[in-house]
Amino acid sequence: MPITVSLKEIIKASKNVYRYLSPTPLRYYQQLSVQIGAKAWLKHENHNPTCAFKVRGGINLLAQLTKTQRKLGLYTASTGNHGQSIAYAAQVYNAKAIVYVPKNANAGKVAAMQSYGARVVHFGDNFDQCRAAALEAADKNKGLFVGPTDEVLINGVGSYGLEIMNELPDVDVIIVPVGAGSGICGTSIVAKTINPKIKIIGVQSAQAPAQQLSWTNRELIEADSHTIAEGVATGVPFINTQKIMWKNVDEFVLVDDKEIIKANKILIETTHNLIEEASAATFAAALKIKSQLKGKNVVLIMSGGNISMQNLSSLIS
Amino acid sequence: MPITVSLKEIIKASKNVYRYLSPTPLRYYQQLSVQIGAKAWLKHENHNPTCAFKVRGGINLLAQLTKTQRKLGLYTASTGNHGQSIAYAAQVYNAKAIVYVPKNANAGKVAAMQSYGARVVHFGDNFDQCRAAALEAADKNKGLFVGPTDEVLINGVGSYGLEIMNELPDVDVIIVPVGAGSGICGTSIVAKTINPKIKIIGVQSAQAPAQQLSWTNRELIEADSHTIAEGVATGVPFINTQKIMWKNVDEFVLVDDKEIIKANKILIETTHNLIEEASAATFAAALKIKSQLKGKNVVLIMSGGNISMQNLSSLIS
Repeated sequence: MPITVSLKEIIKASKNVYRYLSPTPLRYYQQLSVQIGAKAWLKHENHNPTCAFKVRGGINLLAQLTKTQRKLGLYTASTGNHGQSIAYAAQVYNAKAIVYVPKNANAGKVAAMQSYGARVVHFGDNFDQCRAAALEAADKNKGLFVGPTDEVLINGVGSYGLEIMNELPDVDVIIVPVGAGSGICGTSIVAKTINPKIKIIGVQSAQAPAQQLSWTNRELIEADSHTIAEGVATGVPFINTQKIMWKNVDEFVLVDDKEIIKANKILIETTHNLIEEASAATFAAALKIKSQLKGKNVVLIMSGGNISMQNLSSLIS
Repeated sequence: MPITVSLKEIIKASKNVYRYLSPTPLRYYQQLSVQIGAKAWLKHENHNPTCAFKVRGGINLLAQLTKTQRKLGLYTASTGNHGQSIAYAAQVYNAKAIVYVPKNANAGKVAAMQSYGARVVHFGDNFDQCRAAALEAADKNKGLFVGPTDEVLINGVGSYGLEIMNELPDVDVIIVPVGAGSGICGTSIVAKTINPKIKIIGVQSAQAPAQQLSWTNRELIEADSHTIAEGVATGVPFINTQKIMWKNVDEFVLVDDKEIIKANKILIETTHNLIEEASAATFAAALKIKSQLKGKNVVLIMSGGNISMQNLSSLIS
């Protein structure tokens, strides 16, 4: 029976998640509120181990594997936070993890995966080539291939949606950066099931609009991806997350990389948290659609904090 | 009856603290462990609201005030995190807070205090002048003067020591940056009461050694303070925290500002957390006394994350 994504499954997944992780803060910022003309709440997923929301999904996945599966290993492809999630969760559960990353992958993220004990294989130039290699290796070694939008991962990451609803039941708008789509799918299912009036807004960079185009046209559309925001740099959309988005997402905003960088500078200065570009896209979107948000409770998902030192340096200098 | 500092009082204070704050993560870092030749655990006090440990003390203080005291207001002097703590806690408890800061105070920290609703008064050139002005204003307005080492604050911040002992009872060494001294006093009382064998090590910058000199000589000694690390820039020591340190602190390390900056760069790159210089001094100290730490469980207190954007920029460029 295929795994489904639902509020009930997300609640079940949260039991696995909280065995190893703690809820992250949902924090109100007066200084940001003034700028967007609404009540600005940041969901600090950057406070998780691995500094990103995805670790929730990895932990939920590993909790459900057999000893044999853990021993045979997990094979996945990633340019960043997904790979760290699988590597971290594999370490917690004493499982083998093999992560295929592009040859030019961010060295900091690679080092983090290795520090969790994962084997990192540099292969090809992009995610799709890595994905093919990981699939082949999994097949050859009887391991488990893990895709970035597997339902078990969506149910795990949905736990941050539960935390938002528990802490701020009067939330009006949730703005979520869309990479592969697991974050917005988990959050939107929780929020819409509890209160269909909550507005769910997705964000991508205008320099990588594949998910936005696919959502708008209700069909899978590939697009070039040249954004600085790795976390939303999806060139090839995923059918399972798109289908959930078609149902649950109310609006999809594109923001320019320049707007993202400007927003990120404000976020880092104001919150004294490292924030990665994908997360900053939510604040850039809030600034862009300010007139719609007046006086509302707006939650911006800080999906991660893994900005590269090079980008941080050019951002604040 | 004067308030005392003890494990029992800290446990009582923690009830007040957890009404508004959550425990912060104690996180193991493989990459840092390799560098210090020991198991490196970071206590992420930078994850607190206000991004610093001191907020625990402010929350404990406010919980114990009468309605009249809250209305008449709290007067304090600060160059940074203490003022943010009082301002934040005053907002939580709907109290009035007036913070005297030096004329050249860090603009980011001032903005944060104001965002919590505090009235910030720029006065004089340094902490001591601000302190005198705050005392006078408190007296004139029948308000409460709050000093940075008040026992009620130490009991509140001691709650992070409880969290360390709960999560890692086998801790061998705790390295704490020493500013006014409330952090090391709270931690050391908890740790030493539970297990006197735990080694407590204080750290200051060699460019601001007043607390270290006073601890070494068992008398109050003032010293010049020219360090970049605001959080340990104490020129005039405090008798109540020194007395606790004389009893509970095993060693006091001085590290040069250059070592602090180098250590901070490593911490920010590895953890993807913003870390302020005072906190980085603990990692610099661990690198310095590496030979003593071999294989041990070493907890480094990340007291805060409020590094100025200017310092961050020069650090990572």
